Amino acid sequence: MSLTEKLFKKLEEKEDRMIEIRRHLHENPELSFKEEKTARYIADFYKDKDVKVTEKIEGENGIVVEINGKNKGKTIGLRADFDALPITEETDVPFKSKNDGVMHACGHDGHTAYLLTLGEALIELKDEWDGTIKLIHQHAEEVPPGGAKSIVASGILDDLDEVYGIHLFPMFETGEVGLVEGNAMAGRSNFNLHIQGSGGHGAMPETTIDPIVAGSHFVTQVQTIVSRRMSPKHTAVVSVTAFEAPGGQNVIQDKVMLRGTVRYMEEENKEPIHDEMVKIISGLETAFGVTCDLEYIYDYPVLYNDPEKTRVVGEILRNSKGGHITNVADHEPSSGSEDFSYYLQNTPGTFINVGAKPEGVEKAYINHHPKFDINEDSLLISAKVLGEVVLSRLGNK
Amino acid sequence: MSLTEKLFKKLEEKEDRMIEIRRHLHENPELSFKEEKTARYIADFYKDKDVKVTEKIEGENGIVVEINGKNKGKTIGLRADFDALPITEETDVPFKSKNDGVMHACGHDGHTAYLLTLGEALIELKDEWDGTIKLIHQHAEEVPPGGAKSIVASGILDDLDEVYGIHLFPMFETGEVGLVEGNAMAGRSNFNLHIQGSGGHGAMPETTIDPIVAGSHFVTQVQTIVSRRMSPKHTAVVSVTAFEAPGGQNVIQDKVMLRGTVRYMEEENKEPIHDEMVKIISGLETAFGVTCDLEYIYDYPVLYNDPEKTRVVGEILRNSKGGHITNVADHEPSSGSEDFSYYLQNTPGTFINVGAKPEGVEKAYINHHPKFDINEDSLLISAKVLGEVVLSRLGNK
Amino acid sequence: MSLTEKLFKKLEEKEDRMIEIRRHLHENPELSFKEEKTARYIADFYKDKDVKVTEKIEGENGIVVEINGKNKGKTIGLRADFDALPITEETDVPFKSKNDGVMHACGHDGHTAYLLTLGEALIELKDEWDGTIKLIHQHAEEVPPGGAKSIVASGILDDLDEVYGIHLFPMFETGEVGLVEGNAMAGRSNFNLHIQGSGGHGAMPETTIDPIVAGSHFVTQVQTIVSRRMSPKHTAVVSVTAFEAPGGQNVIQDKVMLRGTVRYMEEENKEPIHDEMVKIISGLETAFGVTCDLEYIYDYPVLYNDPEKTRVVGEILRNSKGGHITNVADHEPSSGSEDFSYYLQNTPGTFINVGAKPEGVEKAYINHHPKFDINEDSLLISAKVLGEVVLSRLGNK
Amino acid sequence: MSLTEKLFKKLEEKEDRMIEIRRHLHENPELSFKEEKTARYIADFYKDKDVKVTEKIEGENGIVVEINGKNKGKTIGLRADFDALPITEETDVPFKSKNDGVMHACGHDGHTAYLLTLGEALIELKDEWDGTIKLIHQHAEEVPPGGAKSIVASGILDDLDEVYGIHLFPMFETGEVGLVEGNAMAGRSNFNLHIQGSGGHGAMPETTIDPIVAGSHFVTQVQTIVSRRMSPKHTAVVSVTAFEAPGGQNVIQDKVMLRGTVRYMEEENKEPIHDEMVKIISGLETAFGVTCDLEYIYDYPVLYNDPEKTRVVGEILRNSKGGHITNVADHEPSSGSEDFSYYLQNTPGTFINVGAKPEGVEKAYINHHPKFDINEDSLLISAKVLGEVVLSRLGNK
Repeated sequence: MSLTEKLFKKLEEKEDRMIEIRRHLHENPELSFKEEKTARYIADFYKDKDVKVTEKIEGENGIVVEINGKNKGKTIGLRADFDALPITEETDVPFKSKNDGVMHACGHDGHTAYLLTLGEALIELKDEWDGTIKLIHQHAEEVPPGGAKSIVASGILDDLDEVYGIHLFPMFETGEVGLVEGNAMAGRSNFNLHIQGSGGHGAMPETTIDPIVAGSHFVTQVQTIVSRRMSPKHTAVVSVTAFEAPGGQNVIQDKVMLRGTVRYMEEENKEPIHDEMVKIISGLETAFGVTCDLEYIYDYPVLYNDPEKTRVVGEILRNSKGGHITNVADHEPSSGSEDFSYYLQNTPGTFINVGAKPEGVEKAYINHHPKFDINEDSLLISAKVLGEVVLSRLGNK
Repeated sequence: MSLTEKLFKKLEEKEDRMIEIRRHLHENPELSFKEEKTARYIADFYKDKDVKVTEKIEGENGIVVEINGKNKGKTIGLRADFDALPITEETDVPFKSKNDGVMHACGHDGHTAYLLTLGEALIELKDEWDGTIKLIHQHAEEVPPGGAKSIVASGILDDLDEVYGIHLFPMFETGEVGLVEGNAMAGRSNFNLHIQGSGGHGAMPETTIDPIVAGSHFVTQVQTIVSRRMSPKHTAVVSVTAFEAPGGQNVIQDKVMLRGTVRYMEEENKEPIHDEMVKIISGLETAFGVTCDLEYIYDYPVLYNDPEKTRVVGEILRNSKGGHITNVADHEPSSGSEDFSYYLQNTPGTFINVGAKPEGVEKAYINHHPKFDINEDSLLISAKVLGEVVLSRLGNK
Repeated sequence: MSLTEKLFKKLEEKEDRMIEIRRHLHENPELSFKEEKTARYIADFYKDKDVKVTEKIEGENGIVVEINGKNKGKTIGLRADFDALPITEETDVPFKSKNDGVMHACGHDGHTAYLLTLGEALIELKDEWDGTIKLIHQHAEEVPPGGAKSIVASGILDDLDEVYGIHLFPMFETGEVGLVEGNAMAGRSNFNLHIQGSGGHGAMPETTIDPIVAGSHFVTQVQTIVSRRMSPKHTAVVSVTAFEAPGGQNVIQDKVMLRGTVRYMEEENKEPIHDEMVKIISGLETAFGVTCDLEYIYDYPVLYNDPEKTRVVGEILRNSKGGHITNVADHEPSSGSEDFSYYLQNTPGTFINVGAKPEGVEKAYINHHPKFDINEDSLLISAKVLGEVVLSRLGNK
Repeated sequence: MSLTEKLFKKLEEKEDRMIEIRRHLHENPELSFKEEKTARYIADFYKDKDVKVTEKIEGENGIVVEINGKNKGKTIGLRADFDALPITEETDVPFKSKNDGVMHACGHDGHTAYLLTLGEALIELKDEWDGTIKLIHQHAEEVPPGGAKSIVASGILDDLDEVYGIHLFPMFETGEVGLVEGNAMAGRSNFNLHIQGSGGHGAMPETTIDPIVAGSHFVTQVQTIVSRRMSPKHTAVVSVTAFEAPGGQNVIQDKVMLRGTVRYMEEENKEPIHDEMVKIISGLETAFGVTCDLEYIYDYPVLYNDPEKTRVVGEILRNSKGGHITNVADHEPSSGSEDFSYYLQNTPGTFINVGAKPEGVEKAYINHHPKFDINEDSLLISAKVLGEVVLSRLGNK
């Protein structure tokens, strides 16, 4: 029996436990940066095991668990996130959230459950494989600046040779695994634009500086960033998502607040989009006499899957004998964002999509929906996928 | 001693009482359409007098007091309004508002005080003049649809031959009286525009109908009503005074609400401005795929001072021997609105500005300001002005 | 017989000659600044008369004829313009233009004919009146910078006490005379805006700076000058009248040229409108990266009729016994422009509208139309109107 | 010696002749749809050869030459275009265009030269290979509707199993061959938009319908097609390339003409972009009262290289022993358009980029530049590339 076969067998034996963990986490979701009980639960899981657990990294809730194999070798990171969302759950599952208004609606409960289980199995087998595995239990993926940032900043992952992670998606069939070479998830910036005019009587516009008119011209002009200033072959989005100027009929407003988000699939466009917005705002000030205050936040970078590592992972999975994978697909890049991108800025690797469509469902509720649900078969699949990849990449069979 | 001289003498004797009334009203302000105690106070004032008092006109708080002179003749209306504003008073006067958050910040206390006093004097002299005088004590001038509307609708003023009113303005010197021939105060319409799009993920605009973009194009297009569609010789304003689309960074909004006001100095433009806005909105629906719901309210009409009556009043006042007027000025039309315009739609007359600048003040606080104050000398002036006008117009000396 | 009666009699005797002169001029129109033969014709008219003729003022075609009366007194200017338009005449009159493509389509032939005749009559009577009359035969009214400018600049009119002029308008009934107090004709500025972008392939906008997009945003923003930045009570117009970016489908343009005109009825707005346009253009450069070159020309100022002089002229004309005037009307201000405004900047006076509607016509062709025509009765009327005004204002009867 | 080796040897022997042909064509360029002499020259080339030449296809200048091999087999098309551009040549080559204002500035002279030579060689070897080859000498690639359209429409290519073509690009190194799988060149639509307003006096906008204002709002709104209505992952361009409203300062225009081009890399967006533009225009009519006339022409479709055929061609070329290829690269899709796309709509195949950078040049002049030039070594390379591909695909060695 090969090492991989042994691993698969162990994981199969642990499947019930894995599902139990996932349900426990699902019932007890915690918001990003506030996942203290979850972090405690994870750390406790490793308590009596022969591993090095680093908690409270940079004072936050991230945990890294280091497992050393038989002989020295490469060091590979495997990451699962564990924060939940400010969503009121609307499912009927028996293990529904007990924390009102908070829900694991993005599958992080599943991510953590399979990685804990995979970790345990790898620890049990650690005399049979070479190299080092770092399990990255990451907090706060959902909220900028993202938990990944502090873990990377701590230096604890400086010695990684490769890094891998999985995301569960119920819109893909359970059994399907998806890969994307190169730019796979969009980079993101967010902005808040305060436009200060000078209010006054609705019948006397000439005595005012009308910030609603200025703001509206900002919205029409900002369209030209995507339509005229970016390469049409590139993927870029500028969305104004809030225009806040509440009021009655008689008073011209003093100020307005606009908010929005920017996405780009080419990291090279991160700064040019910002620059163009600054130009438009500066022109607005001159043309309309308003004073603008722009808060522009560079958020998660473009998630870049190393093409060679992605191809290698594709080969490993296509050649897997486990029978748990029905299809290794080339997936389209996604306009969503992920702070797994921070790991990939320093270390080659790839982020793997794992299908989790519930049985008997035509069209699954997507991530972040109050009725979001996963097929729990995807947990075992995920554990096997990442287990096989890591053993293979560490040079074991 | 002429009848006018007698009237002036009586008014002078009653000045202290007039100021007392004004201070009482100032201390006890009531909001538009809720002025029940004030209405009671006014009706009680006439209790034992030989006049016909009509209260609760059309179920609202308006009061009309009919005084019949010696012989039959013309019927003339004199109007004073008595509602207050939702403003927290910031003056230091000893008779400051006792009704927190409500204030007589537009001089209606003064209007009512001088008209009550003038009414009393005219009643005392009614055997010496011919014709009929209707004192119109009007509620709810500040809030659409305006108290004037129901009083006019009741038919009680159908027999008026002429109608006059006064407004106190502290920005004009006490002693100055101002007249405007023709269009004198702007007509007003208000609008609420609900733009229904279809929200979604900030990174996937193509799956949404973005109502902020549509709303911004509405704002830029609506400028062309004034800039291109109205005669440049006319006075018109379209102000978007609210743009309500609050939100965060990630979600493209589902809908926005815009609000605004329209002013016009030529009644003929009331409907064309509305028509043009409807065209722009209808075009917006087609161009952007949004669904719009426009609530458009025709509010107070243009206040039109009959030119001939205004000239005659000017002559009467310029020839006055009372010494209370220092200057009869031609005033500019104002972009403010007034429901006195409803009376003038049916009956010729004029609306007279009376200066009320407090003594020793360089620049007075304007109407509707929390520190608004008047020179109480303006009460006697107002009573004399309107008294002399009505006696003269009724053919008395 | 009063002096005015004598003048009227003389003018009546000269009417045929006046019409003859008008037809001669009509047949021989010359363009603005090129009216050399017309100027020669006018100067020759005065050759043997006892007056001082100043020709070629400031090297242009303007002529001033000074007539001194019996005794010294006030000095009054009377002005008629004599240039024609680049229009191909489409009338059927027997004295149709012989100068192809050039036409007296604004009545300047009539203006000159009546003023020459009136001048002759005044010269013949100069021993019977006191004061000085300066006949201003002005070239180039139709084309900026306007002939008035150089005549005023020469100083030859520095001693004027009052100045008057007439314009013929076929849209008013013959016999009607119209007056406007205060601002009567609009001030005008013109602009040419060159927007330099950077052209390129239609499929690669990101490598270009698209001046058509920038120019379109200029057009939408410039609407806010009238809609938001000027008092709604004022009259202001900003029209973009040309947008020149010809081309095919494949190439993004390198540059565009926009042209337009600005009108204002309040001289105080001349510079603010310019300033606001400069702000918008400066903002456009910053926001879109284009380079703009704005040529902005202040053209004829607002024509301001001195109110007191206008009222006095109204009285003179209303009291005229000549029977030539059927109606002295208050006319509306006009959005057209006239360089008579330059004379009025230095000297009080008024510019008089004289009706010239052809007989039997329902709706006359307006000035500048290729079928423009006048009722020649208006020539005698004009001569009498201005003759009576000048004699009266010089203190003669 | 393999058949491919024999072919290569023949081509090498014919290289001088091939260059001579190219120079002859270069000296005698003809505009699209007017390439009669060039067509004659091509047809004459095949006169005494044992092939079936079809000329004047559908009455135009396209020519198809059918070569039958030893045994029946697959039928494969090879295409070269032969029209020139309306550009005045600015090179110093001794064989510079003799046809003033017309120039082979896109390498079609080279395309034709190598295909004639390759054709001759294949004819000489036709007893040694199986199958049928159709040489497509295509006119009018540069000008819509494109020569390919009529050739396809004639049905003469209905029996093709595969189709290949080459384009020379001096921006790629000579020796480099580039391939793109899937969507490789953009689809194109062109539009002419006539906006009819109603002109008038520049000072009286309210009497007009200003088409420049409407046109400018079209330009700002049309940006939202790319910025908001297309998937950001897709490639789409809408460029307004002409805005024709010439004029002076005084007259508001009656109408304007806008022109532009649309590009899309996903054929599925061809109609939606058109639909969105129609919505915007329809909304413009309602909102501004203009009448629009849109001429919208679907031009060359997206050029879609069959992925499997492209991969196979890549393998053939990577395994070539000829030594003429230094590098088989994955090229980026291009936003340019090509009517080779019409062949690929019916028949799988691929369009191959062949580098042609002149020796010693840092940055070559791009296609359509007046100084465009190619490295003539690229002719032999092209002939070998397409020769090896066709022989291989016909199953020969």
